[in-house]
Amino acid sequence: MDLAKKIRVVADFPKKGIMYQDITTLLKDGKAFRQAVDLFYEKFKNCGIDYVAAIESRGYLFGAPLAYKLGCGLVIVRKPGKLPAAVERIEYDLEYGKDVLEIHKDAIEPGKKVLLIDDLLATGGTAAAACDLIKRVGGEVSAAAFLIELSELNGRQKFNRNIEVFTVLKV
Amino acid sequence: MDLAKKIRVVADFPKKGIMYQDITTLLKDGKAFRQAVDLFYEKFKNCGIDYVAAIESRGYLFGAPLAYKLGCGLVIVRKPGKLPAAVERIEYDLEYGKDVLEIHKDAIEPGKKVLLIDDLLATGGTAAAACDLIKRVGGEVSAAAFLIELSELNGRQKFNRNIEVFTVLKV
Repeated sequence: MDLAKKIRVVADFPKKGIMYQDITTLLKDGKAFRQAVDLFYEKFKNCGIDYVAAIESRGYLFGAPLAYKLGCGLVIVRKPGKLPAAVERIEYDLEYGKDVLEIHKDAIEPGKKVLLIDDLLATGGTAAAACDLIKRVGGEVSAAAFLIELSELNGRQKFNRNIEVFTVLKV
Repeated sequence: MDLAKKIRVVADFPKKGIMYQDITTLLKDGKAFRQAVDLFYEKFKNCGIDYVAAIESRGYLFGAPLAYKLGCGLVIVRKPGKLPAAVERIEYDLEYGKDVLEIHKDAIEPGKKVLLIDDLLATGGTAAAACDLIKRVGGEVSAAAFLIELSELNGRQKFNRNIEVFTVLKV
């Protein structure tokens, strides 16, 4: 199945000029959703991943089934104010303004191998911030995986060379 | 494994007097997370579910692996302004103030059987609003499932009698 055909492109969302990649049309197709998760699984099943770290909220959609299938733990990287215990916090730049991500300080034991996952790799700012957070709490990000990569934005360049970047679809 | 012991209770979050049920300690334990998803799966594997509908954002954590395992489609019920195509929208009352949920109008074909999923059943207001949304776009909610039920809040009473309510843990 060609998963690219399952993505709906919506013009001018959330603002004029943006061609939004709508994954809900892929998610609602049980076979397409399963194929997408299986592609991540096949790629990482023998990599000794200890934790899948998923970025709120659409990263959960692929990170949770992948952690389930790999049989490893799931760590969530959340927007500010949502995690109840002690957190590590990072502020990072967006195109306009700033954003914040948080992770529990006790989310990951030191030296554990982490696979970061989100739905979309655009400029890479959010994912790079999440990698920093994971390192600060002791984890080792060995790979980052995304369903869709917006190639022209060069988000891959934001990652350290020792992090493997895997994407299912390039747009 | 006793999954109840994997939940961390954090006092006074997000405000004084609340005993917050922190699921991150369950998620990060790969065996506990798998067991939780498998309990949902065993319960619903023979119920002819067409779609799992997951409420943003923690509902995704269990809804996504459950849809994957059942081999059915995943529909997401989101906070306002996040879905790019035409939406059905519902405003509902919270203890203090109001909240809004949205679903894509084309999320579900008429008559399809839907399993609603979220992490926590408290007063049931959010879940009841999500059921209304699913019905408005043509779906038939046959069951609702939650990891944790705060029994004393009687959230079960918010559901129509023809909807089966399943919870893994009662607190």
